[in-house]
Amino acid sequence: MDVAVIPDGRTALAPALLEQLRALFGERLHLTEAMCLQHGGSEAHFASMPPDAVVFARSTEEVVALVRLCSEHEVPIIPFGAGTSIEGNTLAVRGGISLNLSEMDAILAVNAEDLDCTVQAGCRREQLNEYLRDQGLFFPIDPGANATIGGMASTRASGTNAVRYGTMRDAILSLRVITPDGRDIRTARRARKSAAGYDLTRLMIGAEGTLGIITEVTLRLHGIPEQISSAVCAFDTLEGAVDTVVQAIQIGVPLARVEILDDMQIRAVNRFSRLDLPETTHLFFEFHGSPAHVAEQIDTVSELAGGNGGGTFHWSNLPEERARLWKARHEAYYASVALRPGAVGWATDVCVPISRLAECITETKRDLAGTTIPATILGHVGDGNFHVVFAIDPNEPGERDEVAAINGRLVERAIAMDGTCTGEHGIGLGKQKYLEAELGEAVDLMRTIKAALDPKDLFNPGKIFSR
Amino acid sequence: MDVAVIPDGRTALAPALLEQLRALFGERLHLTEAMCLQHGGSEAHFASMPPDAVVFARSTEEVVALVRLCSEHEVPIIPFGAGTSIEGNTLAVRGGISLNLSEMDAILAVNAEDLDCTVQAGCRREQLNEYLRDQGLFFPIDPGANATIGGMASTRASGTNAVRYGTMRDAILSLRVITPDGRDIRTARRARKSAAGYDLTRLMIGAEGTLGIITEVTLRLHGIPEQISSAVCAFDTLEGAVDTVVQAIQIGVPLARVEILDDMQIRAVNRFSRLDLPETTHLFFEFHGSPAHVAEQIDTVSELAGGNGGGTFHWSNLPEERARLWKARHEAYYASVALRPGAVGWATDVCVPISRLAECITETKRDLAGTTIPATILGHVGDGNFHVVFAIDPNEPGERDEVAAINGRLVERAIAMDGTCTGEHGIGLGKQKYLEAELGEAVDLMRTIKAALDPKDLFNPGKIFSR
Repeated sequence: MDVAVIPDGRTALAPALLEQLRALFGERLHLTEAMCLQHGGSEAHFASMPPDAVVFARSTEEVVALVRLCSEHEVPIIPFGAGTSIEGNTLAVRGGISLNLSEMDAILAVNAEDLDCTVQAGCRREQLNEYLRDQGLFFPIDPGANATIGGMASTRASGTNAVRYGTMRDAILSLRVITPDGRDIRTARRARKSAAGYDLTRLMIGAEGTLGIITEVTLRLHGIPEQISSAVCAFDTLEGAVDTVVQAIQIGVPLARVEILDDMQIRAVNRFSRLDLPETTHLFFEFHGSPAHVAEQIDTVSELAGGNGGGTFHWSNLPEERARLWKARHEAYYASVALRPGAVGWATDVCVPISRLAECITETKRDLAGTTIPATILGHVGDGNFHVVFAIDPNEPGERDEVAAINGRLVERAIAMDGTCTGEHGIGLGKQKYLEAELGEAVDLMRTIKAALDPKDLFNPGKIFSR
Repeated sequence: MDVAVIPDGRTALAPALLEQLRALFGERLHLTEAMCLQHGGSEAHFASMPPDAVVFARSTEEVVALVRLCSEHEVPIIPFGAGTSIEGNTLAVRGGISLNLSEMDAILAVNAEDLDCTVQAGCRREQLNEYLRDQGLFFPIDPGANATIGGMASTRASGTNAVRYGTMRDAILSLRVITPDGRDIRTARRARKSAAGYDLTRLMIGAEGTLGIITEVTLRLHGIPEQISSAVCAFDTLEGAVDTVVQAIQIGVPLARVEILDDMQIRAVNRFSRLDLPETTHLFFEFHGSPAHVAEQIDTVSELAGGNGGGTFHWSNLPEERARLWKARHEAYYASVALRPGAVGWATDVCVPISRLAECITETKRDLAGTTIPATILGHVGDGNFHVVFAIDPNEPGERDEVAAINGRLVERAIAMDGTCTGEHGIGLGKQKYLEAELGEAVDLMRTIKAALDPKDLFNPGKIFSR
């Protein structure tokens, strides 16, 4: 094979490896600059770090073969799903091969009686929920983006429903994983709980592909609630909104969703999604249950809201109204970026004990008052988790530095409150310098585990921590 | 120091180490045969494997000092809580030092607004709940025995409330852990969720002390429900009982507890706890929520029960009646052993996908029909998890072999149904040969992690798997 004919002159891979890759993947091996740049980029603000090649796998067996080849040639592999991660989690820091799993999107089994299903890693969450709807089932984890299930597992994603249904940590029963030495393992069986040995499932969840490549995921499902009602409520103060949620959780109201949007976020969604909400702090709620139980929850929460400076509780159980509301919520990121024409988004998240949430948001807003860069705040109140989205001018390098400084202060603030530098985005590249501040020597344990399981450092190298 | 004066002639520990241990622990270093036998025994059927010494630690700093000493002298350490584990999890297979943590039982902090608390590892669950009651809070995980929180973490315990509140896996926010190289780490911060790096918390939960010694645990708490009601219902068939639970879960009834007791178990609790239930399959329920919501749950479930051959739904929300019922449930193990005077208990557990539960129990009962050894079945239906308790004659060695064979068939049956060899007891010594059958090469990953974190194999060696 003639190396010289490779498009764009991408020659970092050995000719022998390229030949083997072509034998394995045929036209599903891509070497064009466009494809490599796309896989080395992200939705976020990171500069692209392209891989040397992209392959689209169609089976676990192909993944095993790829892992063995790459191990032999000591070439990195970066698993890639929908490319919706936020912290540069899929960038090819050291080149190598981006393994696109999006064609492995089969729904392999749905066990309705057990409330579980098994899907390939490339299956997307919206696709899964469309498939499940007829059986009266749904998969609750909802990070906003239509991410792949494998990617959501790898970043320990969560989202709007986590307050009631948990995160990917809770949603996964078992994983099929290819290890750096090419083993094809299953981390657990399909029982709803087990005390059998180390929790390899949870070790792989959130490992961002650095310990294993997830090819199949067995998920817990839930019955679609008999009644789903949504509500919106404006508050005089941020504290009033947060206190309402804290009190509701303390008395056991099983809120299905509760999102906080600050005044700037409301302005953004009003413009982008053509709503006309008053431009003050809002809570968006969703309640699940029997009609009587939903009514009771709404009564309880609206009474709490009233006592905390909340306005009228606008609620609805009409599917189209709910859909409009949550569509606006899900477009919040794009709405924020659209506040400024030509802007690029920089999203960050932290998570603090809920008793500190109002204080953390308030101090952050005070910090944001010092910048001219538009910034919105949006949070999963029940978890103590919130996002800041900045709309930065890509032609003003100074703005990146400014946001990086604000982000640094935000993370320090969260850690000082016994919180974490990321509630749901993962570490990737963007949060590495904060991980050590958060967990100290515990990060050395992570390094020891990484070195033991991936001694050649080929699985998504350079992510989470440097070795 | 004169080695010859050590009581019982237990001289396996080097004199220099003994001297250092005495300097560190003073009278809290124990070398008597009685103390060593007690710490090398268990409530279950295993022969005692005593350590060479027992120490009672009072602080994390003492644990760190002990770990460093033991590392230097290459002596095993076996953490010990309440000694209520079932699978020989604390036996000193290779001698060494049993580290009794029961005096580290302080409740260090309760953060009511955050619904969390931090306790030392030796704190017992009943002690914690008594302490929390006045604040309207409770800790739901309930394995029956009044175990220590550290022990419950180490075996990934669960119990009657897991169907609603999850297991120790879900209940823990963060751990303070001493690693085999003597590091004092915290696995996470107090945020309710985090995507920051590998899930070291979950790696330590269920590791049975083989990767680290847990000295502090930060737990999620819940508000005590406004109303708690219990109910008992007899069923014509086992399938009818299980189907009732499956249907209730599918339509989203948030059962707080649902336990199945077979005819033999009912006979045992009738005798032991002076109840007069008809000797057939029963479900014991508990419902949590607002009065209206509890009433609705009971209506729904009693209707489902009626459609599945269930009898009258006897329910109560009087605390003393509830207490009597759940006391009987918690005494079920002792009730089972008491079926036969002078007997010793052998308890085992498996967990299967709930769609296979009725079949798994039915086949197991068929197998039990072939033995004269009294055996009862009791299960956490909502999880697909059930126990078999045998009352064996300690003077008939043939009975151990007979039970071992039945246990082997039970585990094979569960694994064939895509279940696990233990839902909540852990692997310890008793389930090691089944772990490989359940997880295959995944066990090699566990071995790799163990070797990386504990290269001298000193932390509870010989448990979960052999190296």
